[in-house]
Amino acid sequence: MTKDFRWFDPTELVFGPGKLNTLHTLEMPGKKALLVISDGKSARANGSLARTEEQLRMAGVEVVLFDRVGPNPEKPVVEAGARLARAQGCDMVVALGGGSVMDAAKVMAAFAVMPGDDLWDYAPGATGRRKPLDIPSLPTIMITTSAGTGSEVDSWGVITNPKTREKVGIGRVRHMFPVYAIVDPELMVTVPPKFTAYQGFDALFHNMEGYISNAANFMGDMIQESAIEKIGAYLERAVKDGSDLEARANVAYANTMGGYSMIITGTTSEHGMEHAMSAYHTALPHGAGLIMISLEYFRYFIQKHVCDERFVRMARALGRRDAEKPEELLDALADLQRACGVDDLKMSDYGITPEELPKFVQNAKTVMAPQFTKDRYPMTDEDCEEIYRRSFR
Amino acid sequence: MTKDFRWFDPTELVFGPGKLNTLHTLEMPGKKALLVISDGKSARANGSLARTEEQLRMAGVEVVLFDRVGPNPEKPVVEAGARLARAQGCDMVVALGGGSVMDAAKVMAAFAVMPGDDLWDYAPGATGRRKPLDIPSLPTIMITTSAGTGSEVDSWGVITNPKTREKVGIGRVRHMFPVYAIVDPELMVTVPPKFTAYQGFDALFHNMEGYISNAANFMGDMIQESAIEKIGAYLERAVKDGSDLEARANVAYANTMGGYSMIITGTTSEHGMEHAMSAYHTALPHGAGLIMISLEYFRYFIQKHVCDERFVRMARALGRRDAEKPEELLDALADLQRACGVDDLKMSDYGITPEELPKFVQNAKTVMAPQFTKDRYPMTDEDCEEIYRRSFR
Repeated sequence: MTKDFRWFDPTELVFGPGKLNTLHTLEMPGKKALLVISDGKSARANGSLARTEEQLRMAGVEVVLFDRVGPNPEKPVVEAGARLARAQGCDMVVALGGGSVMDAAKVMAAFAVMPGDDLWDYAPGATGRRKPLDIPSLPTIMITTSAGTGSEVDSWGVITNPKTREKVGIGRVRHMFPVYAIVDPELMVTVPPKFTAYQGFDALFHNMEGYISNAANFMGDMIQESAIEKIGAYLERAVKDGSDLEARANVAYANTMGGYSMIITGTTSEHGMEHAMSAYHTALPHGAGLIMISLEYFRYFIQKHVCDERFVRMARALGRRDAEKPEELLDALADLQRACGVDDLKMSDYGITPEELPKFVQNAKTVMAPQFTKDRYPMTDEDCEEIYRRSFR
Repeated sequence: MTKDFRWFDPTELVFGPGKLNTLHTLEMPGKKALLVISDGKSARANGSLARTEEQLRMAGVEVVLFDRVGPNPEKPVVEAGARLARAQGCDMVVALGGGSVMDAAKVMAAFAVMPGDDLWDYAPGATGRRKPLDIPSLPTIMITTSAGTGSEVDSWGVITNPKTREKVGIGRVRHMFPVYAIVDPELMVTVPPKFTAYQGFDALFHNMEGYISNAANFMGDMIQESAIEKIGAYLERAVKDGSDLEARANVAYANTMGGYSMIITGTTSEHGMEHAMSAYHTALPHGAGLIMISLEYFRYFIQKHVCDERFVRMARALGRRDAEKPEELLDALADLQRACGVDDLKMSDYGITPEELPKFVQNAKTVMAPQFTKDRYPMTDEDCEEIYRRSFR
């Protein structure tokens, strides 16, 4: 039988190769933008920064640049961006980057209008003070340069508190949905193969987790099946030839669907388990962490027989058209990881030690408790540690 | 290769059996509602009117009832509803009904805030004066009691001018999207079999037309494939046993997806051709008119070989899992019409004569000109008339 759902996403999605060039034709929600990019070189090197600045200029929008967002963005960086937006009188925020940049930018836009200097006033998690973000955020525009997080169409940002090692989602309020999400696959052709794979698997897992979550529903199923199929058919191509625009477009679409998936069903404990890993090891890319635990994670739920037919359908969507058994999903997933060259990732390469695993369990289950409630089978602390342990290399 | 698309739909969709009972928990966009229902007996007889009034009362909203909307709603009725809303100082509009009621209600809400007493000031088409609807509409809530038009999630209403025999869409402006769309399959269990079929086929054709339109894109494909499959699997069940809630829910979902389909790709000339028929014969249900011309309509495009593989995929989605040829779509469609008891509909039963067919061609091609631009093959007047003629019985 169907499960009820509510669906709300007021972000205007502008999808297609070359769409960055249409930014200036959109009705702008402000006059002076904080333009947020990463602390890396790519936006300058590949010209996307200059093009975005030019588009905003053509639209009559003044630009204040903030170029300090790192991977797994941290509380002080978000606070610095919000301070700059306040000091410069910015009335809108534009993000040009991947999930970290977009998440940081959304939270900067929301925090910039609130009183106080401590972002954790508005954070959930164990130490957040959970005050409501009850003043409408500065309006935002998301220009995604990666195909992974789907962050361009959601209303929150995942931010790390380096002092408490909490990695939490801040927001989930209506006024934080971006005004526009520009998903231009041309911006993704310069993403290196390794990161294409990490990001693509992040998108895949958003959809797979939603599909086996206990919140599954008609609309989620539609979105997730479509996305899983596209990643199964195109991720390898995008990894092997970054300039394959058809592959990039399909993966980009699946990525945005992953964003919708998170809104309509949410992610399950796999995401919580990974956030614990990268909260302690910020150099670990989120997608890589997910890949490391994915086979053991899904094996766990397959063995619990909580939704056999859903695993079969996912195996088929990933390309095993004649799949009959839930276990075939694991084969399909392992095949795709091999094909994308990410089947040999090791936790130990990122400094993770076996001794840390119990700490990850505690972190995941407290900081990311809501994601564990989405599982179809309640995972004990012991089971959770066992998944980490079997995944450890 | 992918086609670009833009997607925007800020309506909050509340889906599931029994969801009408949650109306009072939603944040209301006003204090005094014009509650619009049809001129029939069903909303009173099945209790949905009383339940809706009670829900609004619980939410602190005062109700002014307007119960005069007929099928294929006409200009004077919409003007009367808007006048009542103005006179009573309504600050929101709630529709409880099918496509006609929802369409009329949306246009009432938009017209109520505009100057003037003649709705055609704001209509497109041959005689509409095309003034902009540049004042934000009264906010609306759509409670759909049929599964056909998808009107609960779009931003316009199709209204007939009885003097000029124009049936046109009025609106398509952002402020006319409903605040909420409540899609509660329980409200559909009392729809008689015949209308369940007419409405279900309307929903099917929204999705099929979008799927073969020249605006097809990733998101449209996802939505339409999902909807076509659900109608293929569940419409017969809903027709044969109206109380089959699982079937009702699946068809209801496909119907709302048909609304999204109209936004993201639009309908093709089939819809234009039918609107011409029911513009002259207002007793003809829109879905029935579509069924009458559908086989010859799709046969025309199949013979032009404009998108063979899309017809094959639609045949498969409708249940012919091993379909290989585009023509099999016609078999699948004919089978479904037989299964739903609507394979013997006759234009002549609704007073249509062969002499009128050229008039329909002219009406469709002028009033509904934009829909013809969505066809993958430009349909001449002669071809259009030939489709009507082959369909005539």
